[in-house]
Amino acid sequence: MKKRCIFILAFLIMTNLNVIAQQAIGGATSIVSPEVKADNTVTFRYLAPHAKEVKISGDWMPAQGWTPGSEAMTRDEKGLWTYTTIKLPSDLYSYYFLVEGLKTTDPNNVYLIRDVASVTNVFIVGGGKGDLYKVNKVPHGTVARRWYDSPGNNMTRRVTIYTPAGYESGKEKYPVLYLLHGMGGDEEAWIALGRTSQILDNLIAQGKAKPMIVVMTNGNVAQEAAPGESSLGMYKPTFELPHTMDGKFEETFTDVIKFVESNYRVKAEKSGRAIAGLSMGGFHSLHISSYYPNTFDYVGLFSAAIIANDKITSKVYENIDKTLETQMKNGYKLYWIGIGKTDFLFKNVSEYRDKLDKLGMKYIYRESEGGHTWTNWRVYLSEFVPLLFK
Amino acid sequence: MKKRCIFILAFLIMTNLNVIAQQAIGGATSIVSPEVKADNTVTFRYLAPHAKEVKISGDWMPAQGWTPGSEAMTRDEKGLWTYTTIKLPSDLYSYYFLVEGLKTTDPNNVYLIRDVASVTNVFIVGGGKGDLYKVNKVPHGTVARRWYDSPGNNMTRRVTIYTPAGYESGKEKYPVLYLLHGMGGDEEAWIALGRTSQILDNLIAQGKAKPMIVVMTNGNVAQEAAPGESSLGMYKPTFELPHTMDGKFEETFTDVIKFVESNYRVKAEKSGRAIAGLSMGGFHSLHISSYYPNTFDYVGLFSAAIIANDKITSKVYENIDKTLETQMKNGYKLYWIGIGKTDFLFKNVSEYRDKLDKLGMKYIYRESEGGHTWTNWRVYLSEFVPLLFK
Repeated sequence: MKKRCIFILAFLIMTNLNVIAQQAIGGATSIVSPEVKADNTVTFRYLAPHAKEVKISGDWMPAQGWTPGSEAMTRDEKGLWTYTTIKLPSDLYSYYFLVEGLKTTDPNNVYLIRDVASVTNVFIVGGGKGDLYKVNKVPHGTVARRWYDSPGNNMTRRVTIYTPAGYESGKEKYPVLYLLHGMGGDEEAWIALGRTSQILDNLIAQGKAKPMIVVMTNGNVAQEAAPGESSLGMYKPTFELPHTMDGKFEETFTDVIKFVESNYRVKAEKSGRAIAGLSMGGFHSLHISSYYPNTFDYVGLFSAAIIANDKITSKVYENIDKTLETQMKNGYKLYWIGIGKTDFLFKNVSEYRDKLDKLGMKYIYRESEGGHTWTNWRVYLSEFVPLLFK
Repeated sequence: MKKRCIFILAFLIMTNLNVIAQQAIGGATSIVSPEVKADNTVTFRYLAPHAKEVKISGDWMPAQGWTPGSEAMTRDEKGLWTYTTIKLPSDLYSYYFLVEGLKTTDPNNVYLIRDVASVTNVFIVGGGKGDLYKVNKVPHGTVARRWYDSPGNNMTRRVTIYTPAGYESGKEKYPVLYLLHGMGGDEEAWIALGRTSQILDNLIAQGKAKPMIVVMTNGNVAQEAAPGESSLGMYKPTFELPHTMDGKFEETFTDVIKFVESNYRVKAEKSGRAIAGLSMGGFHSLHISSYYPNTFDYVGLFSAAIIANDKITSKVYENIDKTLETQMKNGYKLYWIGIGKTDFLFKNVSEYRDKLDKLGMKYIYRESEGGHTWTNWRVYLSEFVPLLFK
């Protein structure tokens, strides 16, 4: 064993010096953060001997107006700052530290997610809905990043595709859910922030959802792929991109469908197609499903950004009442609308519901607590998916 | 446009408050970091008005003994710390900040890679070999995370598979490179740290490499998948895991081959199989190729951890001279050995070369500058891949 030990030691020194250095400073042998405990409290630890103030901001803390909530951490004699939450409801949470006011990720937690240009740490509290977001001992689907031709955009574009366990080895045809992100997002958003593959794996394993393919597109037609994944290189992601809500994505969505239906064993028919999206993706889903009014039997609008913009003219948005009426007459199986009570788009969605009511267009309405958050979108996905393809 | 602007503003406030807050502190409208300039110098910026000292540590800086290099950043009157490098050779680099001694990632750079339990930022300087690591405007392969049955380990295990552009739409059979990670790594290592999909996309597009499938396994048979990707949940990754170099992975490698050859259109013959790995993965490649001595025509040992361990008995390691001789007699097309001059395994690899010389076993030897680093392993991959399947 001696040689092996020397090898490991040399290796540790070569590769993990910072960790060792950090440990040496505080005399701690190993810092665990976050520590999710059996009683659903969570302890965070951050070694910062020279810092005068360390706070933690987590998405479970009530925000104060526009300011996200934060709480002070407590310093011990060695400079280790700790904070323990109250018992948290089962969910996936994100957080970061504020060291003398500066946002810092937790160096002891390698699990990070990017939301537009902001990177935060994540953890899961189990024992409830959080279990749906965990990787469990169930059959796992495949997640592939692929590129497809979009002649309508004169581009090759990147797409994330989930195929359920058994797809590759089987022969049957599967239905498809097209799942669209919000403004500032891309083809990585639903798989990373939305925990789509975990939710699908778990719901399918529990017999609560039909096995289905999930196609996560990039809704920003100005870009080929997510930041860092195209020839634009590694640049700072921006929230607003051109041509995100001008009809171009909706109009060229047939390129995506064509790619999927000629490359996968799918039920290439209305009853085998669902489309749903969050925020801008909800807006896209609304318009794609009405512009192609006999294509989708299932539509999901999650906190949909239903914005009428008089300045933008696109055949996609023309005569929306008329196209909705056509969609209604053609028939569909599910039109699902979800919104949080404090969402800044609540009023827009209300007005849209009024429109649907006037048209006599049926929908299922789900009003949740909270606002315009991934916490809600994961819940909406978890509730929407079991209703599909039944 | 007014409604749209309000929407965007509300959204920005909702989602990007930290960025705005950080900007407000320094009065900066937008911090760009890193800024890779046309002359190959790179400027880093970090806003920390209250910090007394900020340094930057980058893997292009010469290390001092066991200590990674670092340089002081300079503070301006608003508390913005900056540092500009000398002209850097084209490559992919990683770095982090040291704020009063504490390791911190760059909040203005969302591109991060994890190496075992350490997360650092990355950037690419183009104009040379770094261009191979970029996403360029070339046809892109597919990267899939899949699960396969490993009866030999009584597990379902996760694997990352690159299929070259054209694979899905074609009918021809492809050769396969099995690419193995080092200690502390997993099935994410080569794709993230190794830039495998970019290197393959680019070399294939340039006509320098044959289109091939690359199978990136998890060499730690004690685990089903990378940290965070199995039912063990999100835990702090550790460097050493049980059963990494005890023969079990080598012995059960046939499970991987069987999966690949029954699920992909591949050349299921010796001339269509290559195996290569870094460090522990080099050790694995050595032993898999000799234990199954008529299976691979191409073998690559990158900074291989050639450790004789008298305490571990496994039929895989028994009579290694004999199995190597058999492998030699069976014939192969390429046995490639790469090592850095300052690698702590340099002597081990030298001794192994002596052994091969005595046996009369031919190999190509590549001695590079530097040590046990991803900088070298990306180079080795870039040089090895063009030699395959010719």
